[in-house]
This record gives sequence, structure tokens and C-alpha cells, in this order.
Amino acid sequence: MEGRDTDRAGVGGTVADVGEFGLIREVTGRQQVPKGTVVGPGDDAAVVEAPDGRVVITTDVLVQGVHFRLDWSSPEQVGHKAAAVNLADVAAMGARPTSLVVGFACPADTDAAVATAVSDGMSAEAARAGAGIVGGDVVQADQLVISVTAIGDLGGREPVTRSGARPGHIVAVCGRLGWAAAGLAVLGRGFRSPVGVVNAQRAPEPPYEAGLVAADAGATSMIDVSDGLLADLQHLAESSDVGIDIASESLEVDRKLVDVAGALGADPMHWVLTGGEDHALVATFPSFTDLPQGWRQIGTVLMPDTGVTVDGKPYDGETGWEHWR
Amino acid sequence: MEGRDTDRAGVGGTVADVGEFGLIREVTGRQQVPKGTVVGPGDDAAVVEAPDGRVVITTDVLVQGVHFRLDWSSPEQVGHKAAAVNLADVAAMGARPTSLVVGFACPADTDAAVATAVSDGMSAEAARAGAGIVGGDVVQADQLVISVTAIGDLGGREPVTRSGARPGHIVAVCGRLGWAAAGLAVLGRGFRSPVGVVNAQRAPEPPYEAGLVAADAGATSMIDVSDGLLADLQHLAESSDVGIDIASESLEVDRKLVDVAGALGADPMHWVLTGGEDHALVATFPSFTDLPQGWRQIGTVLMPDTGVTVDGKPYDGETGWEHWR
Repeated sequence: MEGRDTDRAGVGGTVADVGEFGLIREVTGRQQVPKGTVVGPGDDAAVVEAPDGRVVITTDVLVQGVHFRLDWSSPEQVGHKAAAVNLADVAAMGARPTSLVVGFACPADTDAAVATAVSDGMSAEAARAGAGIVGGDVVQADQLVISVTAIGDLGGREPVTRSGARPGHIVAVCGRLGWAAAGLAVLGRGFRSPVGVVNAQRAPEPPYEAGLVAADAGATSMIDVSDGLLADLQHLAESSDVGIDIASESLEVDRKLVDVAGALGADPMHWVLTGGEDHALVATFPSFTDLPQGWRQIGTVLMPDTGVTVDGKPYDGETGWEHWR
Repeated sequence: MEGRDTDRAGVGGTVADVGEFGLIREVTGRQQVPKGTVVGPGDDAAVVEAPDGRVVITTDVLVQGVHFRLDWSSPEQVGHKAAAVNLADVAAMGARPTSLVVGFACPADTDAAVATAVSDGMSAEAARAGAGIVGGDVVQADQLVISVTAIGDLGGREPVTRSGARPGHIVAVCGRLGWAAAGLAVLGRGFRSPVGVVNAQRAPEPPYEAGLVAADAGATSMIDVSDGLLADLQHLAESSDVGIDIASESLEVDRKLVDVAGALGADPMHWVLTGGEDHALVATFPSFTDLPQGWRQIGTVLMPDTGVTVDGKPYDGETGWEHWR
């Protein structure tokens, strides 16, 4: 990969100045294709190794003003986030992400350096998960829209779906809860600090490796927390046809969240229970499982008629994020 | 799969009325997952068989007002086109498309029936190529943006890239040239007929199977004509470091194109040489290859210093489509 400063100097002007193919050349010239790439960017399609003989595939679209704001996040952070939300979905199946393809739609007067910075952020986060960008498309639109598709390899594991939870199983989590929601609350009030929670919102750090580890430890179901812990557990409970009870005392509320909540007059536990976008992984395991490192029990799987409860009671409030609702 | 009429009756109102998860349920309930789907829609990611051990992957984004207009095309045709442009890229590698994932971004007041109709059109065209939709994401945006990622399986074939053409090889084409451009010219003048060319623009019919057949017949390079014959041959010539000469007399100009061109005062050969969006396949083959059915020779591969020429001369005019140019 070339030095960033030199490269960036090379992309003055807008995407209209640089042109579609110039922009593609610029972006792909900066990328290192991931291991296992048979045909990289620049052809009709990429070709990627899929040694398992099955491929995990997921897509998520991020829209400016809906999923990110360029006055709140740097273009690199937006790229990081666009990659992370997809890589986390692959990890939540118990698979290792291998490659991303990216659709990038933007107005003609977008600074070309924004496009390359988004791509840089995406590449860096993909690399953290062992993956990389192998192809893409850049088109004109009124609004910046970034669509990412991630694929991954199961390495012989059975996919861990949302539907394998059974009454008696343990519910466990790995990764942060509530941080991105706290960051969103801070940014929404016009503040830019504390940087810990603000950066959690701008550039989440899902525990990709924990998905593989959970699968190897016998996870019976798994989901990544994109909409909120209770909302995503609801999805898992519906798919598995079970109930789930969360023990609030087992949910660690970090001192930072308590401080931020105090300053904003908010309830930190509400962020932990309902805040999305941290992309923690939540999984169920057979009872008496020796949970792998980083995983902590937060609840138990019950019979289907109980729904998703906290300390045995339905949660009183909005449980998470849904578009258009 | 549920009965279509009953289902369609169930999606009155806007996407905001139906909600994100309601819309996903509605769309996925209408789809038949393709053969080889291990985990279909409704989980963090889909899982699809990749028997070759390598997977072909490509993504294209279609934006309302840029790539399609809902006053020119039905939502089904838009979905058809969004699928076709991606499926053709997979075919142009010599692979068989297996699955699509779809990102669908639209305003909150979009009629939910538009979303399901786009999805229906996409599914139907995917089925024609032997593929189907296995997952997706629906989000809010100011403008309708459809991103599709297609994957495919090589079935033991080596991928046919853009870089294998060598001087002396035959250049051959399979599929229509200039039809979508003629349709665009007709629509641009406010007409809706002749329906043959207009529908070619609205809902292209790439010859998917011809990609596999060409690979099996020893194609040395291949590309699908999305930007225009000369523009895409230029991409191929650059990747292969060769020149290409097209014999204009070998390019069949269908009577329909001649008639439309006559009515509009246009040059039908210009449409054939520079019109994109029909997604014909162009490939090179070793000389003396017995071309497979449907393929016809249109030129020859030359030494690199000649560029892409028509009857030995550079083409006088714009050679094709590039965003922002």
C-alpha cells in the first residue's frame, strides 16, 4: 500500500473532476487485496477463495444523515463503520470475513479525497478482521450512500444461526453495550467528548474473533447487537421460539457511561439495554458451558411464552431501533 | 412461498406504514430461495454453497434519476435491470450466478408495493439466470437507491478475465448491441414505442448462459457491454495490453434500430458501437476457434499500439458512458 500523504496529494478536486474510472483507479491503487483473492478489482467481478465450499454473505447500506453525519464523523470513521457493521454480521454466523465489495454513491461535487478516505477507513477495519476490499462500484446520487457486502468463510464450522437457542441455555455477550448510544446522545447535544463514547458511535469495534471462538465453544445461536440488546434478543427469541430473561445486575455499566449519563440526565442502563451500533455479539450456549474468554453470562433462555424480559419483567420503554418507526 | 395475490393485498401503504421489519418479512415471504441456499434471509447473514471452492462476486448500484426513472420503467423492470447488470458481470467471468443480496434505500413515503415489485422483478430475472435473492437490507434515504451484489460459481472453470486477449485472437459478441441506447433515445423524446427497443432499455436480457459456453469454448478474455462496445473493448484492450479492430460490416444493425434511427434522425451504427446497457458479452477466442452458437465474430485482436479502431480507424465521437463525465 502506498504512503497516504503522497496518494492523497494526487486526488485533488471533486469526484466529477477525477471521473468514475479515475476514482476507481485511485481507490484500488491504495488497497492491498486480501489473502485468498484470485481476481482482484478491475474486472467484471472479483474471484475469492471459499475453501469451506459454502460462503457467508451479508449486505448493509449506510446513508448520510441517517446512519452517519460527516460533521460528526471523519470520512475514515464512516468507512470504518460501514465495514464494521457488515463484518460483524459475518462474525455473528461463526465465520471469518474474507472480502468486501463496496457500492459508493455520491453527488458529483463530493471531494474525491472523501471517497478515498472512506475507502481507507473501510480497508483498515476490514484488515482488522482479516478481510479486504476486492471490488466496487461508484455512481452519482444526490446523497452519499455506501453499500457494503461482506463475505466470509466458515472453515468447516456449522453456521451459528438465530434459531438454535433452547430453554435452559445460557445467554452471553462479548463486546460493548450502550457505548455508541451514549456517543450519539453526546453528539446530539452538540458535544464532541468524552472521546471514548463518541468514537464508539463513530467507529464501532466489534469483537470479530469472538464469533469464531463462540462457534468453536458450541454456541447454539448468535446475533450481533445492531438495533439494541433487547431488540436483537427479540429477533433471536422469535427465530428460536424461546423466551429470554436478562439479569440486569450482570450487565456491567462502565464508569464512563455512568458519568456521561449523569452529565446528560440520562439512564445509562437504558443505553445498555436498548442502544444499538456497538455490534457486540450475543450468543446462547448449552448450560454449564465454560464460556470462552471475553464472553460473560447475562441471562438465560426460557420457554417461549415469556418473551424477552429484564429481571423477569417486560422492559418498560422502546427496546431498539427500527427504520421508519 | 405464499400466494402472490394474497401477499400483495397485504402491503398497502408506504414503507413507513409497513416498517423496516414488516417490509423485510413481506419481501422475503414472496421469494423462493435458490437451490444451494444453506441459510436464507432472516439471519445476520446468508450462507450459500460455493462448490467450486472459489466465489465470483460483483456489485452494482442503481440510482433513481441516474440509472432508471419510475416514469419510464415499472418497478418490476427496475428490479429486473438491477439484477441483470450484476448477473451479467458474473456471467462475463465464465461463472454461473447463484445468489443476490440487495440493499434497498428509499424515502419513507415510498409505496411499499414499489419495494415488493422491485424485489419481484429482481427475483424473476435472477431465476432466469439460475439464481435468487438470499438477503438484503432496507433503509431510509432521500432517493431510491438499489445496490445489488451477485455471487456465482465457476464450476471448475478458470475465471475468464479481461486480460487474456493476445494479438491474432478473434473478437466475438453474443447478445444485442445498441438496443438499449435506441430505447433511451426514444424515451428521451417522450415516446413509449416501439416497445422492442424501449423494453431493451427498461429490462435488458443479457445472454447469461453464453458466458459459460464461451468459457468452455476457450475464451481468452471476456467483458459485458455495460458502457458501450468501444468503451468496454477499450477496457479489455488496456487490461490485455493489445489493440482491437472492429469490422463494422460484421455488426448486424437490426431493422428495428434502422427504423427508430430514421424516425429520430440518429445514426444506428453509433448506437451499436457506443450504446451501453444491453449487457451483451464480448469475448476473445484463439484464432480458428469454432465459435459457439449465438457468438459472431466482429473483429480481431492486434498489437497494443493500435488502440481500439473501427475498420482500421479511430472512432470519431464519444465511445461510451462514464459517470460524471
